[in-house]
Amino acid sequence: MNSIKVRQLFDYDTWTYTYLLWCDQTKKCLLIDSVLEQVDRDLTLIKKLDLKLEYVVETHVHADHITGSDTIRSKTGVQVVYGSKTGVEGADIYLDDDELLTLGSHSVKAIHTPGHTSGCTSYYIQGYIFTGDTLFIDGTGRTDFQGGSSSDTYDSITQKIFKYPDCTVVYPGHNYNGFTCSTIAEEKKSNPNVGLHIKKEDFILNESKKERPYPKKFDIAVPANMKCGKTED
Amino acid sequence: MNSIKVRQLFDYDTWTYTYLLWCDQTKKCLLIDSVLEQVDRDLTLIKKLDLKLEYVVETHVHADHITGSDTIRSKTGVQVVYGSKTGVEGADIYLDDDELLTLGSHSVKAIHTPGHTSGCTSYYIQGYIFTGDTLFIDGTGRTDFQGGSSSDTYDSITQKIFKYPDCTVVYPGHNYNGFTCSTIAEEKKSNPNVGLHIKKEDFILNESKKERPYPKKFDIAVPANMKCGKTED
Repeated sequence: MNSIKVRQLFDYDTWTYTYLLWCDQTKKCLLIDSVLEQVDRDLTLIKKLDLKLEYVVETHVHADHITGSDTIRSKTGVQVVYGSKTGVEGADIYLDDDELLTLGSHSVKAIHTPGHTSGCTSYYIQGYIFTGDTLFIDGTGRTDFQGGSSSDTYDSITQKIFKYPDCTVVYPGHNYNGFTCSTIAEEKKSNPNVGLHIKKEDFILNESKKERPYPKKFDIAVPANMKCGKTED
Repeated sequence: MNSIKVRQLFDYDTWTYTYLLWCDQTKKCLLIDSVLEQVDRDLTLIKKLDLKLEYVVETHVHADHITGSDTIRSKTGVQVVYGSKTGVEGADIYLDDDELLTLGSHSVKAIHTPGHTSGCTSYYIQGYIFTGDTLFIDGTGRTDFQGGSSSDTYDSITQKIFKYPDCTVVYPGHNYNGFTCSTIAEEKKSNPNVGLHIKKEDFILNESKKERPYPKKFDIAVPANMKCGKTED
C-alpha cells in the first residue's frame, strides 16, 4: 500500500512535537516544525530511513523555540515552507489557503487557521491534520500576542479544522499531559475550550480572562523565527 | 475496517510510554504499562473514548516507576496480566510464551523475552510489537539486575522479536531522545547495541563494560511491582 508515513518526534525541553512525513514510494520526505536543538537527531533519522528531504515546513512563527528550518536548509539545500500570511522573511515557498504542496506521489494541503498567530497554518494529508498551536488535544493555543485573536481561533477550528472527517487524526504542536494525538471526533465532543458545546462568545470571554506567563524564549525565538530560524545576520 | 487502535501515552517524570489498545468493533480495550501517577489521566481518556477496559497488562516488573495496575483494578475491577515467568504475586492472568489474550475480536500474543529481567514479556498484535525494556529504539534495556542476562537479551531480540516482519512497528517502554516508535527493519539495520551487524559475544562484552546508575525509585518500585503495584498491605 502506498500511503503516507508519519513519525512523531518530541523535544523534551520545549514539549514540542516535530513530524517527519514521507511518501513510501518515492522516499521523499518533509519535516513539520523542527526544533533547532534537534536538527542533528532529525537529519540522522532521515538518513537512517534512506529518505530524501524535500522541505522543512512550519505551522507558524513559534514563540517558545527556534525552528531548525534555516539550519537544515543551510546543511541540505531543502526549501523552507511557511503559510503566506506569516510575514516571515526568506522562506522559499509561501502557501496560500487551500494550496497544495507535492510530496512524492502525494499532496499536503495548507489550511490557513489564524488565531494563535495571524499567520498560523495547519496541514492536512491522508487522514492526518497537523494543527500546530491552533488546536491542541483538550485545548487551544493562547491568543494574546503575535496578532492573536480568539475570534479567529474559534472560527479556524470550528469552521475549518472541524470540517475534516471525524476519524481524522489530530497531531498538535505541543502537549503537556502525555497525549500524543487525538481525533477530530474527540475534539468536537470533548475539547473543554472549543468543543461543539462551546459557543463563540463564551470562548472569547474565557480567553479574555486567561492570564498566561510571558514565554521564556519569546525575545530570541520570535525575531529568529521571523527569518526562518536564522540566528545570525 | 475493523483494525486494532493504538494510542501512545507518555509520563514525563519517568519517560515511560503507556499504550492504550482497543478493538474498534467491540470497544474493549487494555492498557500496557500504566504508571501510578497517570491513572486518572488514563481512565479519563478511556471514558472519553467510550471504551470498556478489560485488562491492565505489564511487560515486566519495572524498577523506575510503580505500575498503576493494582490501583486501576481496585477502581474498575479489571484483570491484571503479567508474563508467567515474572514471579509477581496477585495477578489475575499469567501468560505463557506464545499464549493469546483475547481483546474483543482480536488477540494479543505474549512473547517471553527475558534479558532485561528474567520475566520480561513483549506483546504482538496486528503489526505492532510492544517490547517493554527489552528492545528500545537504538538501544536495549540494562541487564545488570532483576535476573538480567545479556545473553538472554540478545537471544530474545534476535531469535524472537526480529522474527516478526520488517514493517512491524516497535513500541518501546521508554525513549530518552524524543523518538516515539520504530520498526523491526530499522532496529535490525541500525540498532547500535543489537542490530544484525553485532555478534552475540560482542553484545555480551559491551554490556559487561557498562556502568549504570542505581535507579532512583528501585527500592520502592520493585517491591510494589512484585505485587502488581500494590503500595500498602
